[in-house]
Amino acid sequence: MRKPLLVVVLMLHSMLFVKAQEISSPDKNLTLKFELEANGVPAYQLSYKGKQVIKSSKLGLETKDVPSFLDGFTITKTEQNTFDESWSPVWGEQKTIRNHYNELLVTLTQKAVQDRYIRIRFRVFNDGLGFRYEFPSQKNLNYFIIKEEHTQFALTGDHKAFWLPGDFDTQEYETVTSNLSEIRGKMKAAVTPNVSQTTFSPTGVQTPLMMKSKDGLYINIHEAALIDYSCMSLNLDDKNFVLESFLTPDAIGDKGYMQAPTQSPWRTVIVSDKAADILASKLILNLNEPTKYKDVSWIKPVKYVGVWWEMITGKSTWAYTDLENVQLGVTDYAKTTPNGKHGATTQHVKEYIDFAAKNGFDAVLVEGWNQGWEDWFGKTKDYVFDFVTPYPDFDVKELHRYAAEKGVKIIMHHETSGSVRNYERHLDTAYKFMVENGYNAVKSGYVGQIIPRGEHHYGQWLVNHYLYAITKAAEYKIMVNAHEAIRPTGLSRTYPNLIGNESARGTEYEAFGGNNPDHTTILPFTRLMGGPMDYTPGIFQTQVSAYNPENKSFVHTTLVHQLALYVTMYSPLQMAADLPETYNKHMDAFQFIKDVAVDWDETHILEAEPGDYITIARKAKNKEEWYIGSIADENPRTAVITFEYLPKGKTYEAVIYADGKNASYDKNPQSYAIRKVKVTSKTVLKQQIAPGGGAAVSIKQIK
Amino acid sequence: MRKPLLVVVLMLHSMLFVKAQEISSPDKNLTLKFELEANGVPAYQLSYKGKQVIKSSKLGLETKDVPSFLDGFTITKTEQNTFDESWSPVWGEQKTIRNHYNELLVTLTQKAVQDRYIRIRFRVFNDGLGFRYEFPSQKNLNYFIIKEEHTQFALTGDHKAFWLPGDFDTQEYETVTSNLSEIRGKMKAAVTPNVSQTTFSPTGVQTPLMMKSKDGLYINIHEAALIDYSCMSLNLDDKNFVLESFLTPDAIGDKGYMQAPTQSPWRTVIVSDKAADILASKLILNLNEPTKYKDVSWIKPVKYVGVWWEMITGKSTWAYTDLENVQLGVTDYAKTTPNGKHGATTQHVKEYIDFAAKNGFDAVLVEGWNQGWEDWFGKTKDYVFDFVTPYPDFDVKELHRYAAEKGVKIIMHHETSGSVRNYERHLDTAYKFMVENGYNAVKSGYVGQIIPRGEHHYGQWLVNHYLYAITKAAEYKIMVNAHEAIRPTGLSRTYPNLIGNESARGTEYEAFGGNNPDHTTILPFTRLMGGPMDYTPGIFQTQVSAYNPENKSFVHTTLVHQLALYVTMYSPLQMAADLPETYNKHMDAFQFIKDVAVDWDETHILEAEPGDYITIARKAKNKEEWYIGSIADENPRTAVITFEYLPKGKTYEAVIYADGKNASYDKNPQSYAIRKVKVTSKTVLKQQIAPGGGAAVSIKQIK
Repeated sequence: MRKPLLVVVLMLHSMLFVKAQEISSPDKNLTLKFELEANGVPAYQLSYKGKQVIKSSKLGLETKDVPSFLDGFTITKTEQNTFDESWSPVWGEQKTIRNHYNELLVTLTQKAVQDRYIRIRFRVFNDGLGFRYEFPSQKNLNYFIIKEEHTQFALTGDHKAFWLPGDFDTQEYETVTSNLSEIRGKMKAAVTPNVSQTTFSPTGVQTPLMMKSKDGLYINIHEAALIDYSCMSLNLDDKNFVLESFLTPDAIGDKGYMQAPTQSPWRTVIVSDKAADILASKLILNLNEPTKYKDVSWIKPVKYVGVWWEMITGKSTWAYTDLENVQLGVTDYAKTTPNGKHGATTQHVKEYIDFAAKNGFDAVLVEGWNQGWEDWFGKTKDYVFDFVTPYPDFDVKELHRYAAEKGVKIIMHHETSGSVRNYERHLDTAYKFMVENGYNAVKSGYVGQIIPRGEHHYGQWLVNHYLYAITKAAEYKIMVNAHEAIRPTGLSRTYPNLIGNESARGTEYEAFGGNNPDHTTILPFTRLMGGPMDYTPGIFQTQVSAYNPENKSFVHTTLVHQLALYVTMYSPLQMAADLPETYNKHMDAFQFIKDVAVDWDETHILEAEPGDYITIARKAKNKEEWYIGSIADENPRTAVITFEYLPKGKTYEAVIYADGKNASYDKNPQSYAIRKVKVTSKTVLKQQIAPGGGAAVSIKQIK
Repeated sequence: MRKPLLVVVLMLHSMLFVKAQEISSPDKNLTLKFELEANGVPAYQLSYKGKQVIKSSKLGLETKDVPSFLDGFTITKTEQNTFDESWSPVWGEQKTIRNHYNELLVTLTQKAVQDRYIRIRFRVFNDGLGFRYEFPSQKNLNYFIIKEEHTQFALTGDHKAFWLPGDFDTQEYETVTSNLSEIRGKMKAAVTPNVSQTTFSPTGVQTPLMMKSKDGLYINIHEAALIDYSCMSLNLDDKNFVLESFLTPDAIGDKGYMQAPTQSPWRTVIVSDKAADILASKLILNLNEPTKYKDVSWIKPVKYVGVWWEMITGKSTWAYTDLENVQLGVTDYAKTTPNGKHGATTQHVKEYIDFAAKNGFDAVLVEGWNQGWEDWFGKTKDYVFDFVTPYPDFDVKELHRYAAEKGVKIIMHHETSGSVRNYERHLDTAYKFMVENGYNAVKSGYVGQIIPRGEHHYGQWLVNHYLYAITKAAEYKIMVNAHEAIRPTGLSRTYPNLIGNESARGTEYEAFGGNNPDHTTILPFTRLMGGPMDYTPGIFQTQVSAYNPENKSFVHTTLVHQLALYVTMYSPLQMAADLPETYNKHMDAFQFIKDVAVDWDETHILEAEPGDYITIARKAKNKEEWYIGSIADENPRTAVITFEYLPKGKTYEAVIYADGKNASYDKNPQSYAIRKVKVTSKTVLKQQIAPGGGAAVSIKQIK
């Protein structure tokens, strides 16, 4: 079918001078128009139900060593195609995902540059637009270096935006909610200190960028399939409300080393007049390639506990001894004096294994098991960890045996302290060590300044590294949960052993001063658009001082809000982050965490407004069970929970975990009430949510 | 004995304010004086037989993140020691090396910096001075970043110098001979183009720097034991003739990341009134640590031929096909059209193996055996080679079998094209491949700009890498010959599997326009001071056009000069670089190359003047055989060759390979005459050397 179509288009071209092309989404709601502006500058615009979403916006790339891909183009060929297929992810929010789009592929030739040509591929889905630059193999185009990508997103007005300061090294900022015009004024306060941070502009912001227009359009800009290219931030022209791509530079200021045939990542614009549609969008996954792995049987969602929150709060330590006793790579730890607060001891890990086994968890994460933590951070150290040498009080073999006996896995922890050369040098040995000792998943970390020095967390060098670590892990059938790494762009479709990322402020910040109460009502619209987050919810003891009197931080949600996050924050990797001693005091509420699924057949976004509230219902994978989470920001509200996705005519038992009557995130967070009700597909539940509160519902068949 | 001495010194210190310290060499010829100048600035001076060599010169380091180590010092302790031992290198110019020095260790305290202290350790040998900075472990000194090392060498006048432009990426320059005051004027012309080069100053020069004072002192400045530190160049204050250390920066301009306890490399000043003593000096080896390897039985000197000069001249190619057929990492070479000039074919390599076996060579180097050579160079490519995938016409298994049958090894070739991340990612796999296929030595290459971008060939990052590659090779019992790597600093004592380096203009430049006729009379005084060079001598067909009519280069020596190089250019790794077809036409002269040893019991420098001539006699290891090489620059001369090192009272047969009567490097290079004479320890041979010529002598017992 494609070839005849091509012929038709080429004939058209030979008959008339093609200047503009339009395609619409399958449902006709979205229309993409591509045209050449004066001087042969490519431009596109996007409308939704007749309203402009993106005004005419320039496209192009500036190069360092060859003539730029900016202007002087003529359209020498156009092709249109329709694609419609359904596919099943290895794990995900729904069993089947429909990938349905109309495509426009434009070939653009620069006559003045020896007839060099590129292609721009647009895909218009019902939920948005994806497009990318393609650089085909050709005589006059081989290697080139990107100085900057100049992809514009010209907005129609001063939208409300949910934004993070643009930064080449961290996403661990509070999201700021403001109009676009207010970004410049709020930037300084937004750039809170971080151990590695590099901002680039007073109006620079990160993606995914969530916006809402005055006339009620929800717009999300991000990228898909970021592979061997540098991360895109957006720089705002706040007079004209034009966002423009701003790539992460390398140590010498270059932004990308390319060889044809190659392509940019997809630039994505997800649009709807309903916020819920943004959360439901699978556009970013659809723009990624199907999995490269033949065997995916070893990749499984994981619910886990871990020796972690106790260190985050300061109750125990990663380190075995004190800094003054340690010389990295030299110290014989057996001869040092323990500090008495080390978390990852054999005995203590066994207690977690026991708790995990008893409560049906798959795994126990153990941080601080390996030598080096006394002196792991800062000082741009090339070598810190070797990833295989345990502290004297952590018995790898015995814990392997014990965990296996209990049917629980231990999750490995590889903190790189940003030194990726050192990590790559040890990678094979470290993965082999995991296989030999029964580990099948690793949490990796990239805290601190990157080594090679001058490189950034989000540059091409590191983007290449993260995928190297993931694909190498796959050779060992190891799943990866990378923290402080690049934010996801749907790559888990292609590389489904990437089961988690951090790449935003996680729960740990609740012990570092706290997250805003609206934090988790925004993250699904921003950070989670590209892929799951290892947010580590489930904190029941919301006062950190209960574990460490010196730490006055508290969790800015109610306990029930923490339960609801297992549904609202989709991830195939879910932690019950609090301590067993605390869960043991609240086994009734803990039952929801024990029950909740981590893989799903269906997902229904029932209510959503970024920064305000989210209510989601999901059907457990291969089970007649549904789980609902509903969360609110600091304002109380009444959630309207519907059940129309339940099979008609059947009655189910719903266990409702609700905030207590006077609950609130700041004054009375641990108050909750659990009740059972009968529900059918026609039930409408009006559930009161406390300030910073939530509701969680489990629905099972009546036995 | 040491402890009482310490006590005495400390007592002295408590009695008087120590301001200056002197020590002399064991033979009393050299005297080192250390003192504090005003403001507590450390300084040293050096004299030889009562003449000043180094005038009072400042010492110190400037740091980035902590107070500098420049001034405010007081001497809080001094220690003196004498050391005298003899040791045997795994391979070398002599069976036994005496390491004999007097040492002064000065502890310097900065009261204003929380009593922080460093040490400077001076070792005075009969042949020169070595000193280094030491940073002991202490409460107030841990991590620090070097901004610059400010070690001065204040010279006594406008010495004649043999210098290369200071550069962070290449030593492949012609040596310039000029007075120090002329460096600035000659710099521009000296900086000839190179594919990776970064100069830093109009008076910057590299080490080893060879100088000769007006009053006849020979002075050589270099460094020893360069480990995890950046390479030192020298920047000349050409008004005052003060040289100062100038370290190689990293991508962000820093010059060294340090953690106490640590130390700088040794800074070395070798001095004599006889040029021959400079060549005989083992000071740099003595300042390195004994070998770290328990088993060194697998490390053996190697005489080899190779599929190499034919590519250098352009007669054949590294590449299998043409550039336009190749997409790196993608191309199926079996489907491409061969270019018909590929050198490393199975059949052709077998011819080299046959030649090697027939003539007693240990090994055959094969370059261009692996996929990627069509597109290996430039364009800052992260990935070029995988180091394990042969071209379709190179049968690894069959050649392994064939070579083993003939008792010959094949030498592996790993060209990294400067992409060290890619090399490190493949290193284990590549070394394993070598072991599996019978290779026990690798020639590695670092042509082009370094990746990670912004790093330099001679920065700490790469210095660390080169040693990583060497020590990892040792795990596989692999010997390393690294080209375009950092110039050696005696590390082969500690890591004797580093059997060769290039790090200067090698013979290849004779096919790239030619080396100066005095080139090899200088190299032993400069490049070779730190360790052997894989110079690849033995070119008999001095007209490159004989192999490639388009290449008008010629070798700037006579044929006999090429023979002499096997003795004058010490290396445990010696190539007979010309083609078998050429050697087969000159088997009488080739006999010398077949005979000459590559490992030695004794070395005698008979005559030497940098830039003019060198005559060296060496006794073969464990054999009653001696080999003599004598070379001249463009001026003819009469070498006076003595034989006093032969056992007394015995008569030997000497085969003398001499330039033909009218031989000269430019007009009649291939003319030679071979004669046999009887010699005893009393013989004095006056041998005429042609312009750019040489003489080679083999001496054996009369049978």
